[in-house]
Amino acid sequence: MTKAMAETAQERADLLIVHGHLLTMRGAGVGYLPDGALAVAGGRIIAAGPTGELEARFAADNTLDAYGCAVLPGLVDAHMHTPWAVVRGVAQDVAHWMQKGLAPYAKHLSPQAALAGTRLNVLEALRAGTTTMGDYATPFPGWAEVFDQAGVRARLTPTINALPPGGMAGWRVGDLYPLDEKTGAAALQNALDFADAWHGAAGGRITVMLGPQGPDMIGRDQLLAVKAAAEARGLMIHMHVAQGDREIDQMLKRFGQRTPGYLAAIGYLDSQLLAVHLTEATDAETEMIAAGGASMALCSGSIGIIDGIVPPAHVFRRAGGRVALGSDQAAGNNCNNIFNEMKLTALFNKIKYRDPTVMPAWEVLRMATIEGAQAIGLGDEVGSLEVGKAADIILVDLTEPNLLPILDTPIRTIVPNLVYAATGREVRTVIVAGRVLMRDGAMQTLDAAAIRADAQAAAQEVARQVAADPVHREMALLDAMAAGQL
Amino acid sequence: MTKAMAETAQERADLLIVHGHLLTMRGAGVGYLPDGALAVAGGRIIAAGPTGELEARFAADNTLDAYGCAVLPGLVDAHMHTPWAVVRGVAQDVAHWMQKGLAPYAKHLSPQAALAGTRLNVLEALRAGTTTMGDYATPFPGWAEVFDQAGVRARLTPTINALPPGGMAGWRVGDLYPLDEKTGAAALQNALDFADAWHGAAGGRITVMLGPQGPDMIGRDQLLAVKAAAEARGLMIHMHVAQGDREIDQMLKRFGQRTPGYLAAIGYLDSQLLAVHLTEATDAETEMIAAGGASMALCSGSIGIIDGIVPPAHVFRRAGGRVALGSDQAAGNNCNNIFNEMKLTALFNKIKYRDPTVMPAWEVLRMATIEGAQAIGLGDEVGSLEVGKAADIILVDLTEPNLLPILDTPIRTIVPNLVYAATGREVRTVIVAGRVLMRDGAMQTLDAAAIRADAQAAAQEVARQVAADPVHREMALLDAMAAGQL
Repeated sequence: MTKAMAETAQERADLLIVHGHLLTMRGAGVGYLPDGALAVAGGRIIAAGPTGELEARFAADNTLDAYGCAVLPGLVDAHMHTPWAVVRGVAQDVAHWMQKGLAPYAKHLSPQAALAGTRLNVLEALRAGTTTMGDYATPFPGWAEVFDQAGVRARLTPTINALPPGGMAGWRVGDLYPLDEKTGAAALQNALDFADAWHGAAGGRITVMLGPQGPDMIGRDQLLAVKAAAEARGLMIHMHVAQGDREIDQMLKRFGQRTPGYLAAIGYLDSQLLAVHLTEATDAETEMIAAGGASMALCSGSIGIIDGIVPPAHVFRRAGGRVALGSDQAAGNNCNNIFNEMKLTALFNKIKYRDPTVMPAWEVLRMATIEGAQAIGLGDEVGSLEVGKAADIILVDLTEPNLLPILDTPIRTIVPNLVYAATGREVRTVIVAGRVLMRDGAMQTLDAAAIRADAQAAAQEVARQVAADPVHREMALLDAMAAGQL
Repeated sequence: MTKAMAETAQERADLLIVHGHLLTMRGAGVGYLPDGALAVAGGRIIAAGPTGELEARFAADNTLDAYGCAVLPGLVDAHMHTPWAVVRGVAQDVAHWMQKGLAPYAKHLSPQAALAGTRLNVLEALRAGTTTMGDYATPFPGWAEVFDQAGVRARLTPTINALPPGGMAGWRVGDLYPLDEKTGAAALQNALDFADAWHGAAGGRITVMLGPQGPDMIGRDQLLAVKAAAEARGLMIHMHVAQGDREIDQMLKRFGQRTPGYLAAIGYLDSQLLAVHLTEATDAETEMIAAGGASMALCSGSIGIIDGIVPPAHVFRRAGGRVALGSDQAAGNNCNNIFNEMKLTALFNKIKYRDPTVMPAWEVLRMATIEGAQAIGLGDEVGSLEVGKAADIILVDLTEPNLLPILDTPIRTIVPNLVYAATGREVRTVIVAGRVLMRDGAMQTLDAAAIRADAQAAAQEVARQVAADPVHREMALLDAMAAGQL
């Protein structure tokens, strides 16, 4: 048989990934396959199996040797606020993070600075193997285009609230927010326009959710209008829920109910809802939310730093709910890296329950992949390495000194080392929808040097304006600056 | 003035590091100096100050441009068990970590495997900016030589206990350990011989501590003999203290006292003691230990994973005690990286006290540098960038995407981002005693490829023996293997 004949007998693939330690995340565990291969065509996985089998079956334009690498579904970050990366590090170790730390920077965060922050954050997350980014932001020019051009998968949520611009100026802790119906209506309309433009864009890579900022920041009727609009368009709702004592205080004062009870009463607790944080939810409230079918976005790092709290994800999961991980914003969490979130989630929950068996490595790896994908409504598209799914794939170098050894029997070390020892920098190659976005650590779609320089310049301009504004004198960290602690 | 004359007028330096963001750790804070420089000669820092000033004053053989980098004292890891890196990842997420996870691997850890583990661990730690390694191990051929040849600073502690070799075979949880005086005496003599050979070796880079494994693993008279020997030789004592409920149970049964009270009664709680873990110490016991002048080694990562506990370092420090960070062993903690320990320490304590202001970034950075150095008795030698101290210095690239932006005013972002956002992979250059051990990420003294290959081969041999030994059937993780979770 000639070579040409052999090739004719083979099926075509755009890409073959061979000789990897596959963690397919199929089934109820991690779906491990030794010396595994994936065939990709048209941006989708067309086969997954033993390397020998796939090499015989496919003729591929390109082949990636994944020897020594774990091959995983791209990681899912369900909840980010990317613009804030531009002021990473300005507000840690403070009480009243929002008011005493971030507020002056929020006041001076220009659309240009937000764009620089988003670009920086997408670079950071992509470098660490995040392929699906659930970003929540007040839209600014170029926001969605960053994700489009980077080639990543994005779930974008434009902020909806009824807080009048500038109307919070005289607001004091304990006062009711000055809600304004016109502002709320305009925000909803903007979000719907954004959804018209971007939901399903870039061949389906970019989709949209509707995002009431919190049930305390919008009236009841408008919150219901958001739900009606979401149902009419088949969109999910992405909302902060029970995210702080300030929210609970507002809810009690305005509606006479804590958040979970209020949401149950107005019919909000169903599978359309991605509920973010649940920081202040009791175990009973958490179980009720999970039982309703809603999903949870767990932001271990940011809530740990900002509040010193471990959200009730363990209770939520025991009640049957699905949990996705989120890195939140770098002005609170300092990094947007799902490896960081996996590790912190496992460790924080062991500490919360004083039990090393709580949240084992495989569970948090599922939250970062298939369970996270399901939680944000993309479970049929990404989150596992299965035929028909989008080819969102990462290769992680297991031969880095901090991930060795690779043992297979009697105990396999790969998953515990990915969760407890990896930093994200061991990610070598990132593929989204079949396209290689990072190859051996080198960005293929992003100009990393330009993004870094722009972010630094934009951040300096924001900081200059904060320094010139008397409002900065209320920042808690000025004392630490004066004491030489920063 | 001719060029030659100008050079004659200048002082000589081996190395100038210029244009860095210096965190000197002088004084009570972080000792920040913008656009700072260090001059190094004869392995020591001979000047620290503004770049312009030092460039004018010194003619240097080599100059390192640290523009965009933080320049820090090399990090101190006070408590490691480096051999265990060779079985990283075999025993996470289990109750009874020692008995149900690690024991079969401990049984088959050959001296050859231990050596491979130590080499791997030194590579890993050096890559992440650790320059002082406080290693605790049962000596094996080549142990100290690894640190010597790598060029790092080491504080080595050979294990001393009175547990007869093989005598633990029939031991059941709850039984008293079968202590054997001859074993204890031989271990002490071995440790003293080791100290004779290595204390002060390599120009003082390598020093030795005496290490009773725990007060439960040796008789009272022999524990006192260790102290007498340590005092006679001016050595510190490095001991696990209140490290688990099993220890407390042994102490109550054998001596009728919990560990801290026992140690106080026999005169052990003084500045000669580095007390490791204090996992089970009450707040009152912790305060007593600190008040006596002892130091604490805090292993946040390993105790978090193994026990789900946050040790009482915050209480220890409030009582005036000094705390060093330790990464413990990779079979429990999975990584030996002081950036990891800084972050976990800050976050775990915020969660423990539900207070984001507890353990701010600058405090944990001090524990990783000057306070850690003081805690292990090297405070006059390393831990800060000051004239006369050893030139143990690291450069960390602050322009990596996850560490940007670098803001100086009104809030400086460098220290929070080093603690909360860095992974350790941003360390670019490592210098110990004036010698460059890693330059732009490339090892200068270690053959990284050989170390990685040897560790993998040695690990596979250990795993093969464990798999062939019926003792492995007691491992808790066999269920997870069967369930496809690993």
